[in-house]
Amino acid sequence: MRIEVICTGDEVLTGKVVNTNFSTISQKLGDAGLSVAWETTVGDERESLRLAFSLAAGRADAVIVNGGLGPTVDDLSQEMAASAAGVPLELNEAWLARMETFFRLRSRVMPANNRKQAMLPAGAEVLDNPIGTACGFALDIGKARFLFTPGVPRELRRMLDEQIIPRLLQRQGSATLIRLKRFHSFGIGESRADQLLAGVEALAGDGSVKLGFRAHYPQLETKLTVTGADEAQIRSRLGPVEAEVRRRLGHFILCEDDQTLEEHLLEMLESRQATLALAETVTGGQIAARLANRPAARRILCRAVVALEPAHLAAATGLDAKAVPGAADWPDAAVAAESLRTLAGSSHALAVLVRMDEGPDRIDFGGDIAIGMATPEGRFSRTARLVGGRDWLRLGAMEMALDALRRQLCALPLDEQTDFEKTVR
Amino acid sequence: MRIEVICTGDEVLTGKVVNTNFSTISQKLGDAGLSVAWETTVGDERESLRLAFSLAAGRADAVIVNGGLGPTVDDLSQEMAASAAGVPLELNEAWLARMETFFRLRSRVMPANNRKQAMLPAGAEVLDNPIGTACGFALDIGKARFLFTPGVPRELRRMLDEQIIPRLLQRQGSATLIRLKRFHSFGIGESRADQLLAGVEALAGDGSVKLGFRAHYPQLETKLTVTGADEAQIRSRLGPVEAEVRRRLGHFILCEDDQTLEEHLLEMLESRQATLALAETVTGGQIAARLANRPAARRILCRAVVALEPAHLAAATGLDAKAVPGAADWPDAAVAAESLRTLAGSSHALAVLVRMDEGPDRIDFGGDIAIGMATPEGRFSRTARLVGGRDWLRLGAMEMALDALRRQLCALPLDEQTDFEKTVR
Repeated sequence: MRIEVICTGDEVLTGKVVNTNFSTISQKLGDAGLSVAWETTVGDERESLRLAFSLAAGRADAVIVNGGLGPTVDDLSQEMAASAAGVPLELNEAWLARMETFFRLRSRVMPANNRKQAMLPAGAEVLDNPIGTACGFALDIGKARFLFTPGVPRELRRMLDEQIIPRLLQRQGSATLIRLKRFHSFGIGESRADQLLAGVEALAGDGSVKLGFRAHYPQLETKLTVTGADEAQIRSRLGPVEAEVRRRLGHFILCEDDQTLEEHLLEMLESRQATLALAETVTGGQIAARLANRPAARRILCRAVVALEPAHLAAATGLDAKAVPGAADWPDAAVAAESLRTLAGSSHALAVLVRMDEGPDRIDFGGDIAIGMATPEGRFSRTARLVGGRDWLRLGAMEMALDALRRQLCALPLDEQTDFEKTVR
Repeated sequence: MRIEVICTGDEVLTGKVVNTNFSTISQKLGDAGLSVAWETTVGDERESLRLAFSLAAGRADAVIVNGGLGPTVDDLSQEMAASAAGVPLELNEAWLARMETFFRLRSRVMPANNRKQAMLPAGAEVLDNPIGTACGFALDIGKARFLFTPGVPRELRRMLDEQIIPRLLQRQGSATLIRLKRFHSFGIGESRADQLLAGVEALAGDGSVKLGFRAHYPQLETKLTVTGADEAQIRSRLGPVEAEVRRRLGHFILCEDDQTLEEHLLEMLESRQATLALAETVTGGQIAARLANRPAARRILCRAVVALEPAHLAAATGLDAKAVPGAADWPDAAVAAESLRTLAGSSHALAVLVRMDEGPDRIDFGGDIAIGMATPEGRFSRTARLVGGRDWLRLGAMEMALDALRRQLCALPLDEQTDFEKTVR
């Protein structure tokens, strides 16, 4: 089945907005075992929409159109869909009633121009949007099934999951369920993960499990896409592959599926009624910010301090100035963590001290990272050297610090070398 | 002149990579007074490339193709360009020599497959890439001029500025210079800015100045695109419009052109040999992180503390616990700043205390923001209520705090109400 995507909107075409909706569509389809063959972006302009619809209708079996379902005059998707299909627009009374309820529940009166959102091409199938006023719909144009989706990202995501992907799978004739299993790891690059996991798909025996990766440094996402007739078959096919991936990636797996490393850490800390204090240097507060925006952080993160010079770090962690060997040298990271732990009255403390190379930023710019932890079990530390430019170094140091805390809490070895480190420590 | 863009690459088509290159191209062209009429994304696959080239050649005057100039087998742009233009590929000796030098300067031997990057369609014009090994080139396919660009973002940006845009302007017959003047503001929404600036373009008298906006909350970028025969004409046309924009946006302008608010603040602090301490709550370290990654921050930012509960904030800023009225109430923000200033030994201190609403995140979720400053001139504060969900609130609080510091340093009024505030304070 050939699937095309048409993204509409002057905001996207002029580059004012980066087209994340397209990557969302393509990723979600990919995760369901479907693939996009071609994408077209056009503005809010009748002639371009007409041509884009006509070209896609001539090439594809299914076309996902994004945007243009809003209430304003430059939202043209319904009009152009009706025109391309050779049908009139008709008021969908049920959707109009839904919209009026939507506004009433928010104590607002529906503006008159929103009525336009309930005008659909005659014969169109409604694609439900439970969280917005833009009505998705599907209809045939030429030989292709066109599926119209809203431009608001969260409305689009929900409609893809609940309406679009099930229809595409059905259209493809897959009388099967699809399941996506995800592992998030830190420390293994994509090419090494590919080597490490060579052959795991074969454990399912029948090509029903597909392995894929999505690298977003410093984390790597390893994905298993499984098809099956029912839940039981999916479980039996996925089970051995999943176990083998877990075995081969080992301690490098941070968390799985929708869980994030931050959530995992906060859950582990909360389960032991622990509190955390943080000391950061070049990461500048980014580690604290990743934890702080989770609700549980209010109970757990009792202090974070940022300092960019050794003397300031000593003062902020309550260290005696004597602990700082020189103006350019950081104190021992575990000693700094221990001191901060006492000062902040927390059960756990994590200090991430980075000595950056001198000079201008460049691709081989690096830094020495020292991670120290103080916990009720004692002091722990880990050092590493990373290169790749300042931003790369900051991201790596942040992830390595959170990973060190995870490993300490899980009683895993702290010193397994990552693929990102420059030299054997 | 009709311009189309073709983005190539499986990474983009499958959504593994968000297509920021397209928005870069479209924005840069827009800033030069050019516009993109149509965009197509295809994978690394001959049949799709052939069709995309042929369709664009039939519709456009100029086509920018992005990606596919690398050394690997799935980089097909040169091959498909030659095929579409009906010419052979030829080794460009000059580019091969450039690549060999490029590798030698980095103490590396050029791998054999990089030679492929010097194979260009016969008769193609080289578009220089001074910072990479991918050779840009231009040639005619059908009635259109095709311009091939590398997928590496910084190489693309430079080639657009130095090679592509000048050629497109020349092709368009603009014997003119283009200048982009930018103002970055906080506190005025795009629609109000549009109203406030109504008619400013007319001050240039001849349609040579075009006004535009790019909103990336919390900041708004106001752009003036000016055309002229030479520098003198550009200055005389831009002058009165620029002055009027500055007058109408007034104190809401944070900085101009390539300067960022963070750089502006650090420069002002450095010029008065000041040092800064920061106290953050729900912004979680994000304010510190924005400042910390600038080189000057090492001399200026002497401490940042993050705390999510009043008692922790009191401890981290050296406040007596008596200054905290209750477990759920923040201390006075200016008092907290004053205390932190003393504790950290800085000349300036900024505290950003936010009382978030209770309950789940939602669009009308809000919070009360209290910003306090302590400086050699005394204590200052500013309060505001923002709504729009947790992330919106965090972003708004962060910007409002940095803006308050700017206003204090510039001796501007602290209490000018922004468009984002819920109610009159």
